Amino acid sequence: MKQILIYSGGLDSTTLLYHLRGGGHELRCLGIDYGQRHGRELDSANDICQRLDVPFRREDLRSIQPLLAGSALTDSVPVPHGHYTAESMKQTVVPNRNMIMLAVAIGWAVSLKFDAVAYAAHAGDHAIYPDCRPEFIETMDRAAGLCDWHRVHIERPFVNKTKTDIVQLGAQLGVPFELTWSCYEGVMRHCGKCGTCVERPEAFALAGVIDPTDYDPI
Amino acid sequence: MKQILIYSGGLDSTTLLYHLRGGGHELRCLGIDYGQRHGRELDSANDICQRLDVPFRREDLRSIQPLLAGSALTDSVPVPHGHYTAESMKQTVVPNRNMIMLAVAIGWAVSLKFDAVAYAAHAGDHAIYPDCRPEFIETMDRAAGLCDWHRVHIERPFVNKTKTDIVQLGAQLGVPFELTWSCYEGVMRHCGKCGTCVERPEAFALAGVIDPTDYDPI
Repeated sequence: MKQILIYSGGLDSTTLLYHLRGGGHELRCLGIDYGQRHGRELDSANDICQRLDVPFRREDLRSIQPLLAGSALTDSVPVPHGHYTAESMKQTVVPNRNMIMLAVAIGWAVSLKFDAVAYAAHAGDHAIYPDCRPEFIETMDRAAGLCDWHRVHIERPFVNKTKTDIVQLGAQLGVPFELTWSCYEGVMRHCGKCGTCVERPEAFALAGVIDPTDYDPI
Repeated sequence: MKQILIYSGGLDSTTLLYHLRGGGHELRCLGIDYGQRHGRELDSANDICQRLDVPFRREDLRSIQPLLAGSALTDSVPVPHGHYTAESMKQTVVPNRNMIMLAVAIGWAVSLKFDAVAYAAHAGDHAIYPDCRPEFIETMDRAAGLCDWHRVHIERPFVNKTKTDIVQLGAQLGVPFELTWSCYEGVMRHCGKCGTCVERPEAFALAGVIDPTDYDPI
């Protein structure tokens, strides 16, 4: 299959990149710059694509940032620290981010006559991120089949996997975890305090895989 | 209700603007510049919003134009002339344009805690534009209700109306048709030859309304 991967340079979507590449699919990666605080993640995405010789396109959608106000990832709201299960983590929801990324990727897939758009929503996202829930993705998959005379499918093979499952799969696939970027603060090292920096080492520990991430000493 | 109208400055969405405004809704208009050949339509949108004192935002998404290649509206493909029923008119389909515009508008609506996004898809669009079909819009409406904890609805009151119905409604509402822009060629006057320039006078004639449009003499 010919697929476009929505690719952030994080642990989940990098594992999906290796998974799809191993499946022999023809891939193009699309990284969306929506003005996120941690735009640095897209440098990781670019580096990893170069290493794999997979085409990467960094799409500049920073103009929409003012429309997506109120999130800690796109606005002056501070990034909450602590565990993802905390109510405060809902501040990291970016209004309709996934529909916007899917819509642009589907448009590109239609234009290229590609078969599918892949993204790495996983089971651990559901409680916080409404646009990672299976029912949202199923509905978007139906819309992707209706939006043009050329039908596109949404691939979401991780939707029922936990972050721990993804780390285990990534380790099997030889994913260079040390090159991936998760942190929402977007500085030189992973902060070790934001939701994704708390979740990341937890997933490595549960998976029994050594975490090579360079966290800021607290 | 508080609504965001996806507003192009054309006959259909201008009539929808007047219709919603007459209904007492609080409105913001969103015009998307996706690099369309007839970007001039957004100047009409801006002028009409100023006249009505309705906020208009022109959103610059020209960066996505290369992703949406192959359409006569975004690429070097010539604009087909003649009637919309012709197969050649499918060249004016822009890959996934409506999902992209809806996604951005829904994101803004979520951010503002607005109730709905309105757009002016109508019955005459269905044969050519897959992303104006009722089943596409119904699916996107479901997705709009799932993408965030704040639910947004898609208003599409014209989905079963013909262009002739819209001209009749616009005439009743006092829409300044002479200020609206339809032509795909995007020059000073309406070309009178492209699909929308053939459809427009036909709709006025069928509606029994005088067409004030300045067409290029052939």
